[in-house]
Amino acid sequence: MISPMSATPSIPASPPQRADTGWTHKDLTSIEALTADEIKSILDTASAFKTVGVREVKKVPALRGKTLVNLFVEPSTRTRISFELAAFRLSADVVNISAATSSLTKGETLKDTAKNLEALHADIIVLRHSSAGASQFLAERLDASVINGGDGAHEHPTQALLDVYTILEKKGRIAGLHVAIIGDILFSRVARSNIHALLKLGARVTLVGPRTLVPREFEKMGVAVTHDLDSVLPDADVVNLLRIQHERQRKEYFPSLSEYTAFFGLTQQRAELLKPDALIMHPGPINRGIEIDSDLADSARSVILDQVTNGLAVRMAVLYLCAGSRNG
Amino acid sequence: MISPMSATPSIPASPPQRADTGWTHKDLTSIEALTADEIKSILDTASAFKTVGVREVKKVPALRGKTLVNLFVEPSTRTRISFELAAFRLSADVVNISAATSSLTKGETLKDTAKNLEALHADIIVLRHSSAGASQFLAERLDASVINGGDGAHEHPTQALLDVYTILEKKGRIAGLHVAIIGDILFSRVARSNIHALLKLGARVTLVGPRTLVPREFEKMGVAVTHDLDSVLPDADVVNLLRIQHERQRKEYFPSLSEYTAFFGLTQQRAELLKPDALIMHPGPINRGIEIDSDLADSARSVILDQVTNGLAVRMAVLYLCAGSRNG
Amino acid sequence: MISPMSATPSIPASPPQRADTGWTHKDLTSIEALTADEIKSILDTASAFKTVGVREVKKVPALRGKTLVNLFVEPSTRTRISFELAAFRLSADVVNISAATSSLTKGETLKDTAKNLEALHADIIVLRHSSAGASQFLAERLDASVINGGDGAHEHPTQALLDVYTILEKKGRIAGLHVAIIGDILFSRVARSNIHALLKLGARVTLVGPRTLVPREFEKMGVAVTHDLDSVLPDADVVNLLRIQHERQRKEYFPSLSEYTAFFGLTQQRAELLKPDALIMHPGPINRGIEIDSDLADSARSVILDQVTNGLAVRMAVLYLCAGSRNG
Repeated sequence: MISPMSATPSIPASPPQRADTGWTHKDLTSIEALTADEIKSILDTASAFKTVGVREVKKVPALRGKTLVNLFVEPSTRTRISFELAAFRLSADVVNISAATSSLTKGETLKDTAKNLEALHADIIVLRHSSAGASQFLAERLDASVINGGDGAHEHPTQALLDVYTILEKKGRIAGLHVAIIGDILFSRVARSNIHALLKLGARVTLVGPRTLVPREFEKMGVAVTHDLDSVLPDADVVNLLRIQHERQRKEYFPSLSEYTAFFGLTQQRAELLKPDALIMHPGPINRGIEIDSDLADSARSVILDQVTNGLAVRMAVLYLCAGSRNG
Repeated sequence: MISPMSATPSIPASPPQRADTGWTHKDLTSIEALTADEIKSILDTASAFKTVGVREVKKVPALRGKTLVNLFVEPSTRTRISFELAAFRLSADVVNISAATSSLTKGETLKDTAKNLEALHADIIVLRHSSAGASQFLAERLDASVINGGDGAHEHPTQALLDVYTILEKKGRIAGLHVAIIGDILFSRVARSNIHALLKLGARVTLVGPRTLVPREFEKMGVAVTHDLDSVLPDADVVNLLRIQHERQRKEYFPSLSEYTAFFGLTQQRAELLKPDALIMHPGPINRGIEIDSDLADSARSVILDQVTNGLAVRMAVLYLCAGSRNG
Repeated sequence: MISPMSATPSIPASPPQRADTGWTHKDLTSIEALTADEIKSILDTASAFKTVGVREVKKVPALRGKTLVNLFVEPSTRTRISFELAAFRLSADVVNISAATSSLTKGETLKDTAKNLEALHADIIVLRHSSAGASQFLAERLDASVINGGDGAHEHPTQALLDVYTILEKKGRIAGLHVAIIGDILFSRVARSNIHALLKLGARVTLVGPRTLVPREFEKMGVAVTHDLDSVLPDADVVNLLRIQHERQRKEYFPSLSEYTAFFGLTQQRAELLKPDALIMHPGPINRGIEIDSDLADSARSVILDQVTNGLAVRMAVLYLCAGSRNG
């Protein structure tokens, strides 16, 4: 049995047998709905797949002849590419649909679009959508696997999985760690999925940011809330800096980018408050000099690019487990 | 010999030998130019390929190493994806070119663009173009196979083929059936290709719609024309509801969508006039509540999603027959 | 040893062993930095690959499991497709990123974008960028292979390689030939890369065009400069007609397209000045009737489509040599 949850995970050379993973879902629409064991199944499988990325020939035939459709009603090149590459490594075929440049949806409902894709024998639909619950809506109505690639401010489950995978890889454990999530929590699907994953795996979570973006209501989820970053840094094992979506001009929530950086940016000076082995994370793309000092982003404590690499392994695992669950 | 034209077609497990199909064309640019036997060859081959879609591994190596270029000068995500997936199942490589987002054609003629693709060893060019005759123009000038993915208001041959395939699959025959095609006939390449295919295969066709969109001139093609839907429904074996292109704002042709629906929409009330086993078809995407009542679209008599699935098999057959004809 | 540099090159049936080519670079960012022997290595390898394009199954497994990312910050469908098809023939996977329709780069630096692609195990990044030096900048900072797909007015190395390949193929040699490059030299990366390649391989080069677009400063590169096309044509073995980028409206550089054609267009009348066996080249897309008479573009002396076909072989060679150099 593969177990990256132990301090010294064994890395098998080939993917696990699905029968051994205990995974039974055709979809991944949220972290909230998963048990800790199900999360661990994904991480174990990802650990096995991570070795595929460094082999000379990076493919395994696990999903040969299967089709993944990236249905991105909201644009996200970064997530699209990660799923696309994960599918290629599993030998699946990929079709990309970008609503922005597409005529697919002309007046058609999301369900009809998806039903059409299923009628074309799509095995997996990765859905990025601006509405919370969109992927769950489809998952209940399709035989195809539906993977949530981000739905409004609700969840972004594969981002949370790659985040906990990275923490586990670097720290050897999740349980008992203190993770600070910093920034625009209110509108962040990344934050919500991370909170669920971290709490289920036994971490302690503190949310940090302006009062307007980190309201006290989050305490009901079982996390701490503070508006004072400096008080949190000395005790944090991990700081996860969320991207400030300043292009969306949330002027009503904070006055300016420079004021945000003054209070919540991870500057060199603030980083001195961190434990020497604290991890610095960011889901990307980073705004250098805003959420994080540029040199810090490239420093040894930063695992930002590890997150990207682990995202590939985690997405391979999710595709493998979900798309295989129907006939494996 | 495979024959889905018989009431109980045999479904072989592997694609037919091209030599047995009698198909000799490198291109498919119109239904009008085909004989009934040629249409049957495509349907037979599609029938063989339909089984590929439900196998565990959906690929056959028929077009391995060949390249299909989707050259969509006019956008159509739906048709593009169907051809892309058909090519994947035949193990071909696919390159997508969308004129809307492309710099390919900057000042260049269509012929030069296509000649360049052929110089890059494109084996098949699927052309969607706003001008009638565009694919025939290319077919005469290229060694590559040219497949018409819709040319202006002229033809959309693979749509007609998937429509007759679906009728044949559900009814066991085409000859002697009465098919009503309803809606914007004047501007519809789908209608023109369907009329040719249905008449060649021995069906009786009635066109129904507003006088502005269904002029009497169509009677010269050998079909009936009427502007009274209710009089046609009791006798129809199949009703094919064309999409109202209301985004193109044909205000000069009918006053409003609600008036269109009042006279030509397939409402629940009107559907009671249909024979119990009549088929309801639509090329998609459907405007629920306009051409068709939403519940009817999802009812047992609706074969709308079957059409989509059969489109994949039909396009596999067309690619296989045309691209194989040159060296098979 | 394969040598297309001899008058009768031998065409091997399979790609050369990388060890035999002498190629040691992971990147191709400019022709200027290459030695004549390195250019010959690419041409030799391309010659071997050209046979792949005409085989029944056009693929070789050389880059199976490797990933090429077409990162086109500036659009170029033509170059993108050529690299994509080259990658397919080497069995590599391809991801396309078009900055125009992409959310990838939202506020992110080019280096961060590229580092992210590398973290996703991209093996090769083909970069098209509006800034001179962009691909060199990335090449120095990435482990992945970086191929310059055109950087500002600096270089377009694979275009020059396919041009010299085509000359070599048709003439049997480069050394001692007289090549006239005609048109907008000042802003042309194609011209710069061609000049470097031709001079390194021993050709004589004359630049021809309006004074505004062909300043005397180019003489420092070791080429002749003239503004009188008719004086050059009788002595030229090759005329390479650059595309007039009239969509960019360089009104300050020449008064009108018709005046350009009057002085620098290759008309039928002017073509009579050419040697009978002179080659007519153009990087495409051609403006028929502007840089070149339409019939001339399709005449026996025109090798414009040969250039396109050879571009595929040259790009296969470049991908193979660069991406293989790291672990071959």
